Amino acid sequence: MNYNAEPPRDGLRLHLNENTAGCSPAVLAALRSIERTDTAFYPDYGPVTTIVERSLGVAAGWVQLTNGLDEGLHVAAQAAARDTREGSTVIVEPAFEMYGACADAAGLRQIHIPPRADLSFPLDEVLRAIDGSVRLVSVTDPGNPTGLPVPAGAIARLAQAAPQATIFVDEAYADFSGRTAIPLLDRYRNVAVGRTFAKAYGLAALRVGALIAHPDTLALYRRLLPPYSLNIAAVRALEAALGDRAYLDWYVSESELSRRLIYEFCGRAGLVYWPSEANFVLVRVGDEAAGLVESLGQRGILVRDKSLAPGCAGCVRITAGVSAHTRTCLAAMEDILASRQN
Amino acid sequence: MNYNAEPPRDGLRLHLNENTAGCSPAVLAALRSIERTDTAFYPDYGPVTTIVERSLGVAAGWVQLTNGLDEGLHVAAQAAARDTREGSTVIVEPAFEMYGACADAAGLRQIHIPPRADLSFPLDEVLRAIDGSVRLVSVTDPGNPTGLPVPAGAIARLAQAAPQATIFVDEAYADFSGRTAIPLLDRYRNVAVGRTFAKAYGLAALRVGALIAHPDTLALYRRLLPPYSLNIAAVRALEAALGDRAYLDWYVSESELSRRLIYEFCGRAGLVYWPSEANFVLVRVGDEAAGLVESLGQRGILVRDKSLAPGCAGCVRITAGVSAHTRTCLAAMEDILASRQN
Repeated sequence: MNYNAEPPRDGLRLHLNENTAGCSPAVLAALRSIERTDTAFYPDYGPVTTIVERSLGVAAGWVQLTNGLDEGLHVAAQAAARDTREGSTVIVEPAFEMYGACADAAGLRQIHIPPRADLSFPLDEVLRAIDGSVRLVSVTDPGNPTGLPVPAGAIARLAQAAPQATIFVDEAYADFSGRTAIPLLDRYRNVAVGRTFAKAYGLAALRVGALIAHPDTLALYRRLLPPYSLNIAAVRALEAALGDRAYLDWYVSESELSRRLIYEFCGRAGLVYWPSEANFVLVRVGDEAAGLVESLGQRGILVRDKSLAPGCAGCVRITAGVSAHTRTCLAAMEDILASRQN
Repeated sequence: MNYNAEPPRDGLRLHLNENTAGCSPAVLAALRSIERTDTAFYPDYGPVTTIVERSLGVAAGWVQLTNGLDEGLHVAAQAAARDTREGSTVIVEPAFEMYGACADAAGLRQIHIPPRADLSFPLDEVLRAIDGSVRLVSVTDPGNPTGLPVPAGAIARLAQAAPQATIFVDEAYADFSGRTAIPLLDRYRNVAVGRTFAKAYGLAALRVGALIAHPDTLALYRRLLPPYSLNIAAVRALEAALGDRAYLDWYVSESELSRRLIYEFCGRAGLVYWPSEANFVLVRVGDEAAGLVESLGQRGILVRDKSLAPGCAGCVRITAGVSAHTRTCLAAMEDILASRQN
């Protein structure tokens, strides 16, 4: 199948881990079925929530849809800050920037765990940092910007070590990794999983995420959320997206191919990279990371300069989406790097 | 003009102050222009924010769009609760239920001002209730469920009396009243205005609201909000809706006509009502409010039982939208009330 391989007209967005092909054609058809009163009447989330619960293999009541996963991250921080005056949150660096923003918004003190040299998940360091003040531990699996997995057993260890805290497992990229902490949720009631339909399903602009946890754990989150946070376009799109498994499979396989192309490129160019379970690859391009990002930008290709992120000196993060887009980006990188050596 | 006067197929929703005609046809056309990558790329809010600022007559930087006004109410409560351990909020009864929910979410103590017998805005009572703990005073103008105005000068009095607090003026229904506190915002930096495009523009299901205040006042709200809270369907819809003034004018005039029809009905039936500046009317139907709501529901007509709201014993709230819909509702009410007298 080939849903979208045309060269894009107005440049390549490979800087925000978006789906570079866009949503499934079935999603577009669903959006076009929206009628005038559909926009005006407050939505019913029952049917779509049931579809998501079934898709994730959890029972009724275990999913709360949110206005993008960002809203889920905010509400997790607010819940953690509640009923405590000196609460803190553990953030594992390099981390998704939203964790710090949400902690700031909620008034949680931030305990940043510095990265290991190889950027692998620093379980022992996190365990050592947990004290009685910790109310929230944010774990990204696979990691962003590394794409690296959280090792087996780590979530359970954290849940046991910090019973007073919520271990929030941000699985924004789990559709690419195929792994999930959802099976742990019944045993560990202080674990919550966050998902987004932004990435693999291409619904970033429609804002649809999900919190998954035991209903008792979700209860506080629900109390903190507005009753109508999901919009009707997101509802319709999500129903259609979850009904088109072939599109998801195609996109995930394109992303896998793109990652292999990036690894091969790095091998030829002698660049260090981190094997990724997500739809992006972190590549160490050296001192000229900012210059490379700028040169690519001049050619209409956006990639993310991560050189200022902890442990990521000299690194850029490249979205691995449609393989034809990745080839375009890599050809441009090759060209730019070659011209520098001359 | 007559955009939608057909009798609706599946009942009448007159219970949530929705736009009973739906959005403008121009909005629907804008939604149908959404393409596959539009759903997948994080939106740019610059152009639509500029359109809203111009529409409201404020300078650049004075508008922050939100995921429905509900998100704006939440963020106002969170901002008020910040950096205080014993903060409180003043809620004027009868009040929109979200104020209490947002205060609960943010951990603000609630000071409820009981209603006057005539439900007029209790300015003196609010002024007397303001103490050093008050960080937020929520004022709805026109009121919900009363539809009554806040008297001239009241917002300025409150802003002066509570310099440590934010006076949040919820103008969800200002498109119907034609009044606004926006001209006060430059002088009183502790006043913020909330708007929604749910009601007059028929965008409730797309979730689009706005916070309007001096940029210094908005700065904290912006710090507490996710960077991508508005979805692309809301962005496109809002641009189109603000470009179709004729539709807004038509709907506002239909709502005015509907209110007159309700007043005339109440006059004939000997029912007390409150003259409303919004797209609904509060009517005292007596002891049988719940029964009337149920009987109308059996005919597929939903109205809101407000009999348990403070000061609203025996009252129902009826949305005043498309006049043909209002006529259908009133005919059913007449029928039900007549059958009771027999």
